[in-house]
Amino acid sequence: MSKVKIKPLGDRVLVKHVEEDEQVRGGIIIPDSAKEKPQEAEVIALGTGKTDEAGAKSSFEVKVGDRVLVSKYGGTEVKLDGAVYTLMREDDILGIIG
Amino acid sequence: MSKVKIKPLGDRVLVKHVEEDEQVRGGIIIPDSAKEKPQEAEVIALGTGKTDEAGAKSSFEVKVGDRVLVSKYGGTEVKLDGAVYTLMREDDILGIIG
Amino acid sequence: MSKVKIKPLGDRVLVKHVEEDEQVRGGIIIPDSAKEKPQEAEVIALGTGKTDEAGAKSSFEVKVGDRVLVSKYGGTEVKLDGAVYTLMREDDILGIIG
Amino acid sequence: MSKVKIKPLGDRVLVKHVEEDEQVRGGIIIPDSAKEKPQEAEVIALGTGKTDEAGAKSSFEVKVGDRVLVSKYGGTEVKLDGAVYTLMREDDILGIIG
Amino acid sequence: MSKVKIKPLGDRVLVKHVEEDEQVRGGIIIPDSAKEKPQEAEVIALGTGKTDEAGAKSSFEVKVGDRVLVSKYGGTEVKLDGAVYTLMREDDILGIIG
Amino acid sequence: MSKVKIKPLGDRVLVKHVEEDEQVRGGIIIPDSAKEKPQEAEVIALGTGKTDEAGAKSSFEVKVGDRVLVSKYGGTEVKLDGAVYTLMREDDILGIIG
Amino acid sequence: MSKVKIKPLGDRVLVKHVEEDEQVRGGIIIPDSAKEKPQEAEVIALGTGKTDEAGAKSSFEVKVGDRVLVSKYGGTEVKLDGAVYTLMREDDILGIIG
Repeated sequence: MSKVKIKPLGDRVLVKHVEEDEQVRGGIIIPDSAKEKPQEAEVIALGTGKTDEAGAKSSFEVKVGDRVLVSKYGGTEVKLDGAVYTLMREDDILGIIG
Repeated sequence: MSKVKIKPLGDRVLVKHVEEDEQVRGGIIIPDSAKEKPQEAEVIALGTGKTDEAGAKSSFEVKVGDRVLVSKYGGTEVKLDGAVYTLMREDDILGIIG
Repeated sequence: MSKVKIKPLGDRVLVKHVEEDEQVRGGIIIPDSAKEKPQEAEVIALGTGKTDEAGAKSSFEVKVGDRVLVSKYGGTEVKLDGAVYTLMREDDILGIIG
Repeated sequence: MSKVKIKPLGDRVLVKHVEEDEQVRGGIIIPDSAKEKPQEAEVIALGTGKTDEAGAKSSFEVKVGDRVLVSKYGGTEVKLDGAVYTLMREDDILGIIG
Repeated sequence: MSKVKIKPLGDRVLVKHVEEDEQVRGGIIIPDSAKEKPQEAEVIALGTGKTDEAGAKSSFEVKVGDRVLVSKYGGTEVKLDGAVYTLMREDDILGIIG
Repeated sequence: MSKVKIKPLGDRVLVKHVEEDEQVRGGIIIPDSAKEKPQEAEVIALGTGKTDEAGAKSSFEVKVGDRVLVSKYGGTEVKLDGAVYTLMREDDILGIIG
Repeated sequence: MSKVKIKPLGDRVLVKHVEEDEQVRGGIIIPDSAKEKPQEAEVIALGTGKTDEAGAKSSFEVKVGDRVLVSKYGGTEVKLDGAVYTLMREDDILGIIG
């Protein structure tokens, strides 16, 4: 895979969608009946950092390579080298799969 | 039961729904007429922690294993090994049954 | 009366509705014309406490046993041993009858 | 007049509506054309106090016995010994008549 | 003119509407096409003061006697001795004419 | 030009619209297709100042005489000596032309 | 290219849209199916700076010359010397391409 060319701004992260047939890895199946369907994704790049009130950068809860559950409707999609990525705020990541 | 594979992010917790026929345990019956129906659930995993303004982590009010009442419409559902789990913010937990 | 089995979370309290025929006790009659009808209730259990910005717990204005006026539409109802209880934030309690 | 039996919670106050035929006292007539009609009322009881961020109680601008102008649609009405009272936040009081 | 009998609460001020035929004084004509029509008014009384986070009172930008431009739809009208007054928050005053 | 007679309140500024035929000066043409059309204007007067949490006044980014781009729909219009002015919060000024 | 004549106010930046046929440079293709289509742009000018609570200026995450991904619907467009620019808050920039 080629090196990713997007650096997310602020508290955003870049995640890459995991294909349907890969999603059974880890044993998590997302039910059809769920009102909001979360999706599996992999963290590709962290943002430049969220700035707190004192002007300091706060660190991210996730790290590059983490498998995460993200809201299907959060963030903004971009396509890079044929794969779909999403730029989203870290707070819209629901949990880390591991 | 197999070990749960999701670590909730931030102030979120992972809860597991308690089946209808188990819900009479504890003597709590949720009335049909209630506008918002709470549901019994069990706390399975705590999040990575809510960060306060000073950058410190604040602790959770609930602990793993607690029986809790949660709003039916809060959070996001995921299915794992056939059981339904919900990722929700701790503030959406109404109370601890005990 | 059996011991209540719900511990409200955070700044929530558990109140028990006072029956219509008991409500004349104390001389308070709630008019039919009022847009929002308050209801008499008794405080049964206090929450685990509201956390202020410094991480300290702030105390409750009400105490267990207080007769209070609550908004009819606030909170979430649960039924326990045949009686109706409501889990509600303390800020939705209008006043203490006494 | 019998002693009032309601202690407002937090930054709320209890006010008693002044009858139409008493409202000309003080020379204030509220025009029919006003979109939001304020009403004259008398402050009967102050709340347990508004808590500021440092946990200290802040004092009320009004005192028991003050004649005030209140928004007609603010607060919640209760009837006590035949008179109509309103539980409202102090910030919804527009001004003191005097 | 008789002494005004209303003390505005908090950060509110009491202003008196200036009649149409008086509004040409000062050379300001408010265009018919403006979406929100401001009105000339005179500041009659200042409120009890806006309280900042430290509990101190902050001072008003306007003073009694100032000619001001106010939003037509802000505040609450009261009639006193035949003249129309408005109780409004100081932040809804657009500017001082002088 | 006669001296302007309005002192904006707080963080507001008074700007004077620049006529269409003057707008080509500076080489900026605002496209017809833009959803929100900004307008050229000149800063005529600064407000009494925005007060920060510590009670101190913060300074303005613009100064009297600056050519600015403002949102067409922000603020409130007043007419003075035949020219159209707008009272608007400084935060609604998009940029300084220079 | 002539020198840009707009200084963005506060935390805004001025960006210049990158033409369609230039957008393949860098390998990023924005999918048609995306609900919110981001656009490539170049940072032309930084604002006068975001002021934090202590009154200090905070620095920008982007710098002049950066290729960025911006929301298609954010900010306000202006045309200068035939090219389309957008004045937008820095927080509406999604990421830096590079």
